[in-house]
Amino acid sequence: MTADLTALAAELPDGVLVTDPDIVAGYRQDWAADPDAGTPLAVVRATSTEDVQAAVRWAAGHRVPVVPRGAGSGLSGGSSAVDGGIVLSTERMRAIAVDPVTRTAVVQPGLLNVEVKQAAAEHGLWYPPDPSSFEICSIGGNAATNAGGLCCVKYGVTTDYVLGMQVVLADGTAVRLGGPRLKDVAGLSLTKLFVGSEGTLGVITELTLKLIPAQPPRSTMVASFATVDAAAEAVLAITRTLRPAMLEFMDQASIGAVEDSLRMGLDRSARALLLAQSDAPGAAAQEEVAAMVAACESCSATEVFSTDDPAEGEAFTAARRAVFPAVQALGSLLLEDVGVPMQALPTLIAGVEAIAAACGVRICVVAHAGDGNTHPLIVFDPDDADETVRAQRAFGEVMDLAIRLGGTITGEHGVGRLKRDWLPNQLGPDVMDLTRRIKNALDPDGILNPGAILT
Amino acid sequence: MTADLTALAAELPDGVLVTDPDIVAGYRQDWAADPDAGTPLAVVRATSTEDVQAAVRWAAGHRVPVVPRGAGSGLSGGSSAVDGGIVLSTERMRAIAVDPVTRTAVVQPGLLNVEVKQAAAEHGLWYPPDPSSFEICSIGGNAATNAGGLCCVKYGVTTDYVLGMQVVLADGTAVRLGGPRLKDVAGLSLTKLFVGSEGTLGVITELTLKLIPAQPPRSTMVASFATVDAAAEAVLAITRTLRPAMLEFMDQASIGAVEDSLRMGLDRSARALLLAQSDAPGAAAQEEVAAMVAACESCSATEVFSTDDPAEGEAFTAARRAVFPAVQALGSLLLEDVGVPMQALPTLIAGVEAIAAACGVRICVVAHAGDGNTHPLIVFDPDDADETVRAQRAFGEVMDLAIRLGGTITGEHGVGRLKRDWLPNQLGPDVMDLTRRIKNALDPDGILNPGAILT
Repeated sequence: MTADLTALAAELPDGVLVTDPDIVAGYRQDWAADPDAGTPLAVVRATSTEDVQAAVRWAAGHRVPVVPRGAGSGLSGGSSAVDGGIVLSTERMRAIAVDPVTRTAVVQPGLLNVEVKQAAAEHGLWYPPDPSSFEICSIGGNAATNAGGLCCVKYGVTTDYVLGMQVVLADGTAVRLGGPRLKDVAGLSLTKLFVGSEGTLGVITELTLKLIPAQPPRSTMVASFATVDAAAEAVLAITRTLRPAMLEFMDQASIGAVEDSLRMGLDRSARALLLAQSDAPGAAAQEEVAAMVAACESCSATEVFSTDDPAEGEAFTAARRAVFPAVQALGSLLLEDVGVPMQALPTLIAGVEAIAAACGVRICVVAHAGDGNTHPLIVFDPDDADETVRAQRAFGEVMDLAIRLGGTITGEHGVGRLKRDWLPNQLGPDVMDLTRRIKNALDPDGILNPGAILT
Repeated sequence: MTADLTALAAELPDGVLVTDPDIVAGYRQDWAADPDAGTPLAVVRATSTEDVQAAVRWAAGHRVPVVPRGAGSGLSGGSSAVDGGIVLSTERMRAIAVDPVTRTAVVQPGLLNVEVKQAAAEHGLWYPPDPSSFEICSIGGNAATNAGGLCCVKYGVTTDYVLGMQVVLADGTAVRLGGPRLKDVAGLSLTKLFVGSEGTLGVITELTLKLIPAQPPRSTMVASFATVDAAAEAVLAITRTLRPAMLEFMDQASIGAVEDSLRMGLDRSARALLLAQSDAPGAAAQEEVAAMVAACESCSATEVFSTDDPAEGEAFTAARRAVFPAVQALGSLLLEDVGVPMQALPTLIAGVEAIAAACGVRICVVAHAGDGNTHPLIVFDPDDADETVRAQRAFGEVMDLAIRLGGTITGEHGVGRLKRDWLPNQLGPDVMDLTRRIKNALDPDGILNPGAILT
């Protein structure tokens, strides 16, 4: 340990500063498995806001990069370590206090999303945002990336539930923004600025989250289609008048991958499958599902199934969530989360098919279809150098396509390091300049997560 | 007209630049009737983003302050004119295009909130945020202040519906942020930063708004209480498990003021009245209202009335909205919008009563009770110098009280100029410093709405 690190260690509780190379190696990459991830000096496994402040102050004094990290389940390389930097992990900051009267939860960032949901449920309350990875992703990472999920089509994304936070700034100052107030417009919307800033403006050490009453059990519909276009048409017919609590799309490759691993009895011959749920109260859920069934039938669905049994519905949802691990079993993945305005959905999916063919790689597509957010999963063999290059080409071409269609390169995973080079093409030079001015105002030495979002 | 203004006039279409003192005088104040409002050089009644750019570029070149203004219905002096500055009015920018497929509207800032709702309704869609002033306030002003309203308790505030915007920055550059995508995390959350920035960071010239399908007709409940505490208890009992689409509170003084002007047959002897609505689908609305009635009865309501007739429900809502003009008939007003965490609501209302008694002024209280956002309306006679001073003292003491209770000085109207001096007490020096750093990064010469939010 260098003399400098010894000084940092002295400011932290025992065991918080980790320099053992074997342990540190485990913090180099997140789930994006960024091949360019660096080797950090050390990991700080903070136990408190004060630990985070001490680490950031030390880093600021030494101009050492700080990469904040929650559960490490990020998919864009937002937590890839930086050579000579420190990784600031919040995984040990796991307190939560639910206040049923204000219907809020005050949460430390290391708690998993599923644990927030569970703590809320004990009070008959619900924290809606539900990334597919909700059982393994941290709430701090959710806030840092403004994470989405399956129910967002009706219930909105993470930022809609963040009422306040404590955040450690680039000089180690800790500030409190917002609080347990459903309406608060005192000053600039700073809370909202930090949500989705991917650790480039500050390190979130506490969140105040809005909760809502637990919603009724869901009714579920599954529909198969002979063409992607028919399924996309059904999506638009549904969202035009209804508010499904979930509206998911799976293409044939995804259906096959899930069937291989789960044997749910899904129709492998279908070119597309839609999975939708309603959580309207009482008889309204059945009515809403019936309307969704009718919409699918009018769009030439080949098979439609519906159920009011929550357990059966959850089995289908689990199948949808299983696409990612099922496809991962086929090889390494480059995982996209491009989004487009709703009417461009069929063009995007057709374009992705064309890119797969042109690049000679397999791309499975699942989508949060109800909000136009898709996950093309590019499968490749990392030991095949040529295929790896073709996969990377496809990765960029899918983002280029989304931008051409008026869409976004990232709907919910964040820019991180893997999509950074495409961001200027989406935002343009003036918005990039605006972004840089804010970054420079808040982190003039550029120590916070350098390389994420911005070069 | 000075030579400099002539140069600006030459860049603008005929009639856009107004220097006639009689007309300019009408743009000195907004509804807050700020006595310290200045006298501007000129008003620019922009017809396009290009007009706004020309005006801001000219102002930047001459270091002349720019006060952006929508419909002028602001209640915090956010649009008070500045001596020697220009008022940049967006009232003539009134285009709207609704896209039912993406369920979005692209709107210019001068359109009124009610006109956005009407345009959406033509497509079976709904734009939820509903300030009491929805018939006279502009959508641009709504975004600039992150306006709230009555349905926000269930449907959220303006920022929850702003997906994107075009905004003219302090140097005249126009940038596009976000767009018609329900999920988009590409780069910093800049759209959200500009919402609620009260014209201090840029001038919004176009908004992309999220719409949702029109909701079912509402069932309504009205309950009277012998004490404020009992009503506050009923509010907590309701929000604990239900999601009312509206949950409003009126105190005895407000009930009396409305009865004086509308003669609705409200119980003048009641110390508090709650007005709640459900828009749950089908039979669920009646069930939800029945549960709210039961909650009120269990909290010793003296009288409870409910109806499934939307017209009857709307009459009660109109009565609630009429409080502001009814109280205004009693004298001049200082209008607060302090908010507190829900459980502090009874303490806040009792504290406001005590302040009224101590300062010897009349304060009526209405509240968006379901989200802890209250409107103490301080009545005074502006020709009575002593009472004016006491009213101003009460105005500050109410904000001090809200801060002591962990609340906010402004839940939905904005800081503007009238609440600016209290902002540091709520936010503290570190957050004020953070605010200033962002302001300086985006508007280094301080030409955009100087004196609003920050001194």
